[in-house]
Amino acid sequence: MAHKYSLYPVIMAGGSGTRFWPLSRHLFPKQLLRIGGEHTLIQQTMRRVLGCAPASNVLISTNAAQADLIRVQLVDWKEELTNGFLLEPEGRNTAPAIALAAVEVLARDPNGLMLVVPADHVVTGQRDFQAAVELASELAADDYLVTFGIKPIRPETGYGYIKPKSTVLLGKRGKLRGYPVQKFVEKPNVAKAGQYLKAGHYFWNSGMFVWRAATILEEIGTHQPAILASMERIRDLKKDGATPQAIDDVYRQIKPVSIDTGVMEQSSKAAVVPVTFKWSDVGSWGSLDEVAEKNKAGNVMTGRVIDLESKQSIVYADRRVVATIGLQDMVVVDTPDATLVCPKSRAQDVKTIVDILKKQRAPEHLEHLTVQRPWGSYTVLEEGPGFKVKRVTVNPGGRLSLQMHHERSEHWVVIAGTARVTRDQEVFDLKVGESTGIPVKTKHRLENPGQETVHIIEVQNGPYLGEDDIVRFKDDYGRTVKV
Amino acid sequence: MAHKYSLYPVIMAGGSGTRFWPLSRHLFPKQLLRIGGEHTLIQQTMRRVLGCAPASNVLISTNAAQADLIRVQLVDWKEELTNGFLLEPEGRNTAPAIALAAVEVLARDPNGLMLVVPADHVVTGQRDFQAAVELASELAADDYLVTFGIKPIRPETGYGYIKPKSTVLLGKRGKLRGYPVQKFVEKPNVAKAGQYLKAGHYFWNSGMFVWRAATILEEIGTHQPAILASMERIRDLKKDGATPQAIDDVYRQIKPVSIDTGVMEQSSKAAVVPVTFKWSDVGSWGSLDEVAEKNKAGNVMTGRVIDLESKQSIVYADRRVVATIGLQDMVVVDTPDATLVCPKSRAQDVKTIVDILKKQRAPEHLEHLTVQRPWGSYTVLEEGPGFKVKRVTVNPGGRLSLQMHHERSEHWVVIAGTARVTRDQEVFDLKVGESTGIPVKTKHRLENPGQETVHIIEVQNGPYLGEDDIVRFKDDYGRTVKV
Repeated sequence: MAHKYSLYPVIMAGGSGTRFWPLSRHLFPKQLLRIGGEHTLIQQTMRRVLGCAPASNVLISTNAAQADLIRVQLVDWKEELTNGFLLEPEGRNTAPAIALAAVEVLARDPNGLMLVVPADHVVTGQRDFQAAVELASELAADDYLVTFGIKPIRPETGYGYIKPKSTVLLGKRGKLRGYPVQKFVEKPNVAKAGQYLKAGHYFWNSGMFVWRAATILEEIGTHQPAILASMERIRDLKKDGATPQAIDDVYRQIKPVSIDTGVMEQSSKAAVVPVTFKWSDVGSWGSLDEVAEKNKAGNVMTGRVIDLESKQSIVYADRRVVATIGLQDMVVVDTPDATLVCPKSRAQDVKTIVDILKKQRAPEHLEHLTVQRPWGSYTVLEEGPGFKVKRVTVNPGGRLSLQMHHERSEHWVVIAGTARVTRDQEVFDLKVGESTGIPVKTKHRLENPGQETVHIIEVQNGPYLGEDDIVRFKDDYGRTVKV
Repeated sequence: MAHKYSLYPVIMAGGSGTRFWPLSRHLFPKQLLRIGGEHTLIQQTMRRVLGCAPASNVLISTNAAQADLIRVQLVDWKEELTNGFLLEPEGRNTAPAIALAAVEVLARDPNGLMLVVPADHVVTGQRDFQAAVELASELAADDYLVTFGIKPIRPETGYGYIKPKSTVLLGKRGKLRGYPVQKFVEKPNVAKAGQYLKAGHYFWNSGMFVWRAATILEEIGTHQPAILASMERIRDLKKDGATPQAIDDVYRQIKPVSIDTGVMEQSSKAAVVPVTFKWSDVGSWGSLDEVAEKNKAGNVMTGRVIDLESKQSIVYADRRVVATIGLQDMVVVDTPDATLVCPKSRAQDVKTIVDILKKQRAPEHLEHLTVQRPWGSYTVLEEGPGFKVKRVTVNPGGRLSLQMHHERSEHWVVIAGTARVTRDQEVFDLKVGESTGIPVKTKHRLENPGQETVHIIEVQNGPYLGEDDIVRFKDDYGRTVKV
């Protein structure tokens, strides 16, 4: 079928990562992880939607803190996504984020269709996915708000359920059918969930939607008028050339509400397409084996794991060797600065662990020892009173900002590649095995003029070694500089 | 009672550490670990025997690979132990090691009594221990080979059992009694062990002994004549000024045999003193809770552990945070380069893990990332192709050898203390935040002339970075130097 209207995929990538701790962190959420494939979840999602629309139509709904990391992961589509990032100043659940995206799509194309997909789900069956999107698009062109219904495979109590009005056929495509929604059922208890599973005509709400931007905005206006009003105010402020601060303030004042409870469950335009592709929201470590490859004993084991006779367990090793003996239905996740051990059945309680770390202001909830940057990355090897040791990598052509620190001196030893160093007025190259020192309060810059990734060991000395002791004078990546 | 004879404690410290992996390593066995107290097991053992004899009487039976680490841990008795180390060239089980110690004691004192104790057991009740040693010494003076019998508290199948001939009282002291041994019973099956536990007149063989050096050598001569012959050959070779190599070769040819099966079980002179002190050989992670402090839920937790509702579990965290949820009877041991997770009931299978690592020639079975040296220590922070990063600490007054490397250059950045550097003909001091480079094939030395421990970060570059690329020219600690 030729689409009547163009499709704009909207990748919802604003979530913060607690449920996959310690592999996910507040600043490194699940969508950035390599789960169930060679690509990260957001890369998988990007590739998936490119089967339905060109990259220049894709919008990424996220926030400033995560945008840099997402840009790094989606660098293959750097040009196409230049204007594709919609940044929330603060998370307000899905309805406001979708309204913001709808406004953007409308501005580009008054007849535009939106395909809303979470960045961190796993879908298997690209053809089936595209077929479902195409049928949903047909229904959406008729002003339906279309959700994808997933056939339940267990009495899950963590999802909402959808019952189609199966007497009314809205459209079909191969084996796929589209129906109006008879009712949405909020997360049921286990007895109800068992009934739905047996009944066979209830479907999981997958959180993926297709609709016309105009339709969803209209329905948001009907059911969440305050959100629509805020969108109009933001539009007016932009017209008047207001400060980003003023615009963000309007967004921050919106009451958080999800698109499911706020709009879908109240709208008479809701439709559902029960789908045939395999889907998982990989909601916790315990559900990893839905999407990852298992060995004969039912274990999902990644990295340098030495196992004796474990069964149905998930073991993730990062840099260290992890030895496991006789585990049953256990989760073991070993990262450079934090380790998790629990039964699969308790995997959802990792949220409590993250809360405890947060209260302790422990860095292990916030980010990894390895931090991605637009120019490369750094890994903290050790820190202690008065010193910090990092391995810094600089990509070919990458260049850190021209910067200065008030409180620390730095020493650099090159261990791979050729590094170009700016130190005050000097510019010189350092080869493998060469080193230099950067005294405190000295302007400096590190760059990689070559084709090979530069690795240096940086030893910092000083009374204060926080990342925020930095004055930037020039930056290639649009970060704030001193003027 | 005044001893008729002087007592010479012999600390058996030759064991290699597999059962407490990953906390113990081949080159860092259990006796060097801090278990059940603020001191390491060998330090506890040293303190224990000092209640019975002066430090200058103590002999440490070990091997060259471990002697340096033991000297570091027993540095408080450095002077007294100067001649106290008996080094086996290769482990030959306990009988040859004890014979070697007996020869040494006889040379010092023809009437000397030996108190043989393993370096890696935990004993609680110093007074009871001393009382038992005193009663055993009385029996030993009458030419008995005295063992300490431990009252069984569970149907253990891993130990040998001793049945006293309780009709014959050899001596008493307070509540303590000494009897001849009626029989030794090798490790029983679980049914037998249950019977022994009920019967109440069987005791665990603790591997601790008191005897006259002359008596045990005589009995070794009777039951293991080949061992005595080897001892005599070694004595003759020493007299003739033979090379250490030639002497070691004789020792290496001895057939390994334990003092229990080789002598005690065959001797008519065996006696037993059932003791009142608490004892554990802490044979595996699973038995740690016999000696370590438990919290209300029965957990032994060390380090930065965040736990939700675990029970009867052992969790050891070293530098990282370890999060555990809902564990029951589990062992989790997290070290800088290796992690172990298993049920307590499978803890003995860690030996199999160590065997696998050994076959893989994986460094994690051999030693820790932190390695103790006589002058301080080093910790490998990271290594990769062509580079290695270490933190090196040098104790006040400590000095590495004057050395040179064929294949690597080194860069040093001082992060604590003041380091004195020798580089070719130069000698200079580096303060915190200062650095220097040591080119390949350059003679150099690092020392700490001050009162504060020196910490430096060392970055090594080169095609080969093994510890054996070292030419020593001068050394304070008796290690081989180039002449």
